[in-house]
Amino acid sequence: MTAVEKLETICWLGDAQGRLRLIDQTRLPETLEYRDCEDVESVWEAIKQLRVRGAPAIGIAAAYGVCLGLRTVKDADRTRFFERLREVTEYLAGSRPTAVNLFWALDRMGRRAETLRETAAPPEILAALLDEARAIHEEDRRMCHAIGRHGAALLGDQTGVLTHCNAGGLATAEYGTALSVFFTAQDEGKQLHVYVDETRPLLQGARLTAWELQQRGIDATLICDSMAAQVMRERRVQAVMTGADRIAANGDTANKIGTYSLAVLAAAHGIPFFVAAPTNTFDPQLPSGDAIPIEQRDPREITHGLGRQTAPDGIDVYNPAFDVTPAEYITAIITERGVIRPVSRETVASMLGEHRV
Amino acid sequence: MTAVEKLETICWLGDAQGRLRLIDQTRLPETLEYRDCEDVESVWEAIKQLRVRGAPAIGIAAAYGVCLGLRTVKDADRTRFFERLREVTEYLAGSRPTAVNLFWALDRMGRRAETLRETAAPPEILAALLDEARAIHEEDRRMCHAIGRHGAALLGDQTGVLTHCNAGGLATAEYGTALSVFFTAQDEGKQLHVYVDETRPLLQGARLTAWELQQRGIDATLICDSMAAQVMRERRVQAVMTGADRIAANGDTANKIGTYSLAVLAAAHGIPFFVAAPTNTFDPQLPSGDAIPIEQRDPREITHGLGRQTAPDGIDVYNPAFDVTPAEYITAIITERGVIRPVSRETVASMLGEHRV
Repeated sequence: MTAVEKLETICWLGDAQGRLRLIDQTRLPETLEYRDCEDVESVWEAIKQLRVRGAPAIGIAAAYGVCLGLRTVKDADRTRFFERLREVTEYLAGSRPTAVNLFWALDRMGRRAETLRETAAPPEILAALLDEARAIHEEDRRMCHAIGRHGAALLGDQTGVLTHCNAGGLATAEYGTALSVFFTAQDEGKQLHVYVDETRPLLQGARLTAWELQQRGIDATLICDSMAAQVMRERRVQAVMTGADRIAANGDTANKIGTYSLAVLAAAHGIPFFVAAPTNTFDPQLPSGDAIPIEQRDPREITHGLGRQTAPDGIDVYNPAFDVTPAEYITAIITERGVIRPVSRETVASMLGEHRV
Repeated sequence: MTAVEKLETICWLGDAQGRLRLIDQTRLPETLEYRDCEDVESVWEAIKQLRVRGAPAIGIAAAYGVCLGLRTVKDADRTRFFERLREVTEYLAGSRPTAVNLFWALDRMGRRAETLRETAAPPEILAALLDEARAIHEEDRRMCHAIGRHGAALLGDQTGVLTHCNAGGLATAEYGTALSVFFTAQDEGKQLHVYVDETRPLLQGARLTAWELQQRGIDATLICDSMAAQVMRERRVQAVMTGADRIAANGDTANKIGTYSLAVLAAAHGIPFFVAAPTNTFDPQLPSGDAIPIEQRDPREITHGLGRQTAPDGIDVYNPAFDVTPAEYITAIITERGVIRPVSRETVASMLGEHRV
């Protein structure tokens, strides 16, 4: 096993009788521990407990989870097999009820099975479903690598880059989105120095991104979110690169809280601000970011999130999960199909449209 | 004891045989606990262990500490009394070696004693020193109230204000600097809503400012530092108000890391950015903020500061203690003598100079 293989967030070991191996992300950064899932219940638990996280990674894990759930009925009749498929799908869909990629992956698995309902026996359908899960997995991997290639072309050698939250391999099949750009630049021989926002309140930057960069041997420096402006002022970074949760038709981008702050600060310091995201992150039905409701999260993430109480009892807390960065602050959006630059309704439509056949 | 008296950071109880009572700030926000010091050793320990913190508060505590240290020799001869004075002063100076106000207060106490060396007996000198400590205490209190009055005039009713770190009563004799403005505005019947940056890494905002505002009955909402831009974008605040550690002759202001970020974000959102600080925070010998070296603090404040490890072992960390906000981002500086607005070398010199007689 090479160092890179060892960092695979998700992998399937063996044939149809094999098992799903996940990095248990709740143990990071203290411990790199794998969790093997041999039944659908353990996949459900891993998604529920955030052992596997990040929209693409959840979708991939769930697709494999469907296969694990069907193994017990592969010798049953067709009716029982499809009944179990429905049960397993509904069960997995309940693990993280707001994860769009989860539903997308489960839906795709169901459709694949339907195409074979009349022509194949359950063992063959199960084999086809494992192939489908592997295809979802492989497509995500290819998408991340393509984002990495397009993005790396935007970064010179000896560049300082600032990132926020975790848009890394841990959230995807491999390499991630923003971090894929860094990994690819490194593969191409470029020397980067990445400044990592710790990303309060849940510290995905400190816990996950810092760890991923360290594992890959990329120079990384951890900072508190409030230090980003000072890092820019000292000219330690020449670019900011983040991921995205959802992008509107005009390019307005929802991402982890704190992203908008970085975009405004980057503009004030004359530093380009890049977003790296696959085209399936775009929501063409959404005219602008104004239509995105801002989810409020549990106040205890801020007051009690770090092993001890850090604020007085009863204090009011504002805890938006993400913010929306207006398109005018975004220098370019890096997708698997290419780079959208400048970012506008027209350039977004052009990138999304020209590949819709 | 009224509610306000109960919040006195420092108070002297009784006469020359009395004792120094401090709020133990290491126990906040969980517990409001007082610590009574009856000897110089316990004052030293309280400063060393950050039970009392904030430059003005440390100076005041040390001044009273000198009196406590001299009590044991008040009936000794003059030579022994002054020998002990030197011992006590050197001992207290070692408690927080970088605290400017500490040296200033000890020096002032020493000078007061010297003026009486030939004319008074030790018990009388000790009484005069207790008066001097009370004068330092009272001057700080008056300075804070004057800052509050000048600053409150800048805030309208029904105003949202954002603050950072703790520039409150806990750092001074009473009322503080930035927080004094809020307390005074409240006393004047204005309704404020204060957004409080938690202020990573040491969380003075979450632990101390949120608590002070809550104790005084001011509407307060705690946020993570990365949320300030979003709070501004949503027009929840109409002003930003912070304290200062050190101000250069041209108005460039060093303050807790994250302050510069807020100033840039405020400018981008068209929101005024105010600094509240006594004139003794100015360093007229310092031509601009460029000359201020940025102190680096222990990486463990970021990686281990909150009760558990939150970043991988061995990760590089950048942990500047403060940043420098250029004068052009500062709408006004509020001092005990009045408001400097606009902020420039000339207006600063004018405010400092016209009171130098």
